[in-house]
Amino acid sequence: MRAGPSQEEIRRQNLGALLRQVHVHGAVSRAELTNALGLNRSTIGALTADLAAAGLVREELPKETGRAGRPSLVVRAESERIFVYALLIGVDRLVAARIGLGGEILDRRERQRGRGEFVASDVITPLAEFVNEMHRKAPEESTCVGTGVAVAGIVRREDGLVRLGPMIGWVNEPLGTALHEVLAMDAPTYVGNDADLGALAEHIRGAGTDSDNIIYLSGDVGIGGGIIAGGRPVAGHGGYGGEVGHMVVNPNGKPCICGARGCWMTEVGEHALLAAADRQGIGREGILAVVDAANRGDALAQAAVRDVGDWLGFGVANLVNIFNPETVIFGGTLRDLYLAGAAQVRSRLNRNGLPACREHVRLRTPGLGDDSSLIGAAELAFQRLLADPLDVGAPATQPAESTV
Amino acid sequence: MRAGPSQEEIRRQNLGALLRQVHVHGAVSRAELTNALGLNRSTIGALTADLAAAGLVREELPKETGRAGRPSLVVRAESERIFVYALLIGVDRLVAARIGLGGEILDRRERQRGRGEFVASDVITPLAEFVNEMHRKAPEESTCVGTGVAVAGIVRREDGLVRLGPMIGWVNEPLGTALHEVLAMDAPTYVGNDADLGALAEHIRGAGTDSDNIIYLSGDVGIGGGIIAGGRPVAGHGGYGGEVGHMVVNPNGKPCICGARGCWMTEVGEHALLAAADRQGIGREGILAVVDAANRGDALAQAAVRDVGDWLGFGVANLVNIFNPETVIFGGTLRDLYLAGAAQVRSRLNRNGLPACREHVRLRTPGLGDDSSLIGAAELAFQRLLADPLDVGAPATQPAESTV
Repeated sequence: MRAGPSQEEIRRQNLGALLRQVHVHGAVSRAELTNALGLNRSTIGALTADLAAAGLVREELPKETGRAGRPSLVVRAESERIFVYALLIGVDRLVAARIGLGGEILDRRERQRGRGEFVASDVITPLAEFVNEMHRKAPEESTCVGTGVAVAGIVRREDGLVRLGPMIGWVNEPLGTALHEVLAMDAPTYVGNDADLGALAEHIRGAGTDSDNIIYLSGDVGIGGGIIAGGRPVAGHGGYGGEVGHMVVNPNGKPCICGARGCWMTEVGEHALLAAADRQGIGREGILAVVDAANRGDALAQAAVRDVGDWLGFGVANLVNIFNPETVIFGGTLRDLYLAGAAQVRSRLNRNGLPACREHVRLRTPGLGDDSSLIGAAELAFQRLLADPLDVGAPATQPAESTV
Repeated sequence: MRAGPSQEEIRRQNLGALLRQVHVHGAVSRAELTNALGLNRSTIGALTADLAAAGLVREELPKETGRAGRPSLVVRAESERIFVYALLIGVDRLVAARIGLGGEILDRRERQRGRGEFVASDVITPLAEFVNEMHRKAPEESTCVGTGVAVAGIVRREDGLVRLGPMIGWVNEPLGTALHEVLAMDAPTYVGNDADLGALAEHIRGAGTDSDNIIYLSGDVGIGGGIIAGGRPVAGHGGYGGEVGHMVVNPNGKPCICGARGCWMTEVGEHALLAAADRQGIGREGILAVVDAANRGDALAQAAVRDVGDWLGFGVANLVNIFNPETVIFGGTLRDLYLAGAAQVRSRLNRNGLPACREHVRLRTPGLGDDSSLIGAAELAFQRLLADPLDVGAPATQPAESTV
């Protein structure tokens, strides 16, 4: 247990708490801030003034009040002035977005990713082009405070090295440093696992805002997992935790690319579903075609969805017993698979999950649709600003050009 | 993110941090405290004086310094004056101890637990007798600040209801309230899962003091798990997390008492080992007899240990992929099983664990021997005092008699 903070640390913490409140909840009145933060009105006023002077928030009249009398001012994030770049490197797609403080997507670009793009440089060039395009369109008086990258791989926290990205064919790709060099920004570049960032985003502004214990599962070719326990991400020693796709659920199952046999992702992933449905196809489209056929009454596809749904339930039940979460969220292709096989998932969860562990579990689809990981990348990039607003927010008058 | 603390909260936090330092690390000098807590000497002096006035610590000359010159005073916990009762309800035994601030076991009682003791009242009477015996021997000027109970079951945090204790045959036993009533103490009674408390104790003063991510596994008839992630216990929504024994590792495996099939505990527990070794026997002694036979060269026992060691490795690899821990600790009968089958455990971990997740994992036996859960129960009981020392510590002058 560490000692209590200094006055300086408390001020920083208060500034961060206020800015986070505005960032997450949108325009809020001083009265709401007083309430949410448990600070008195004069402290809220002083903190707001400091953040406004740094160009991070502004006070204005609310859009409409619907009440008589003089409306009170609301504090609003300077979303157009303070932004991050969020990048997503998925199995099938590349996405880049400019996202303002407050979480608004101000601009975005997307293209398919070829499965042959086996080194980081294959995606760095197109992503950098996206960023440059968006940057040219950004308002002159705006500032980029960071870049966040979500990638379908195992990421070393300190430098953004992708140690293993089996789904995208990467091994030890120095994504973070290479991207940072190409983007040539002053603001730092952060890289995270896509499922970890999906969990973060769903916790902050998605289907898990009412939960402190969340399991976010992201399906693609395999299964990624991001876990929030007691309100905080489960990262592990090197940040490599959450590799639920390589939990062995069937020791006599199919060989996995990791070398083991019967990993959860081999029983639930693309190949398992396509094989069970006796279909060709690949990736997201292949999976969705099977789900679609099942929804239209194709018996073989239905059997495949049921079978895979049962295996999905096996892993979910294991995780529920381990984490006793309030919320399990099925993202990516698992969203469609879950919706088609919900009865099997729930049935297996009821059989294998301990009553105490599963009784309050809600199974959900993402509140942020297909953008959970992208929004999570933005949240990752905003973390430094929210931890120490005035230190990071200081160069608010710096024109956008100088930051890229 | 909450706002920064008030002056009053900071003082409480500092008092708690200082007292925790003394509680965990034993006698420490003011200089060491200044260093560890990052507070200046005068603040440390004032905090120490407050804690001493409340009868929680005292300052004295160190036992021996080995150095010339005037030795500086050390701050030491008032272990004889401030204590808790720690109780353990295991599958095969009942233990009660009086444990002083600082973690010293001042007194203890133990007896075997009959497997027919299927309701809480069967153990409450003998445990209360133990406590009363110890209490009569406690110094008159000493104060009990709480009672902690470790039980092999799924425990509801708020009132200590044991929802399910399959290994001890309990269902919905109101252990916490019943025990509190019988003990008739002013100080509160807290109940926790034995493996959760084992993890807590090993983290604070056992084999996991150098780790922030710990998986503590406790074998008895089944397997219990306690998990520390990012330095904090993984509790889950209702405090029921960590039920790793009911992670299904073999869908075609043996039926488990929970209703599922192939739970980890069915593949690794007492029955699996005894069946594989083709032996009669029961409980801890039955398991240890097989391990002992294997160590003495019995081929069938060796095969059984290897087989069960492999299954042990399956579950460990799953947990390592999920948590990326620094330390996995094998407690209870798993300690002996792990020591006998370490090669199989490690081999399976190497095959099923992702390199990034397992590369820094140390497999260990408990630093606290068979007392991890008992010490953890004491730590649970001390938590309130350490969170707010002066509030709890105030009745330090109250004689022991009035607290039971």
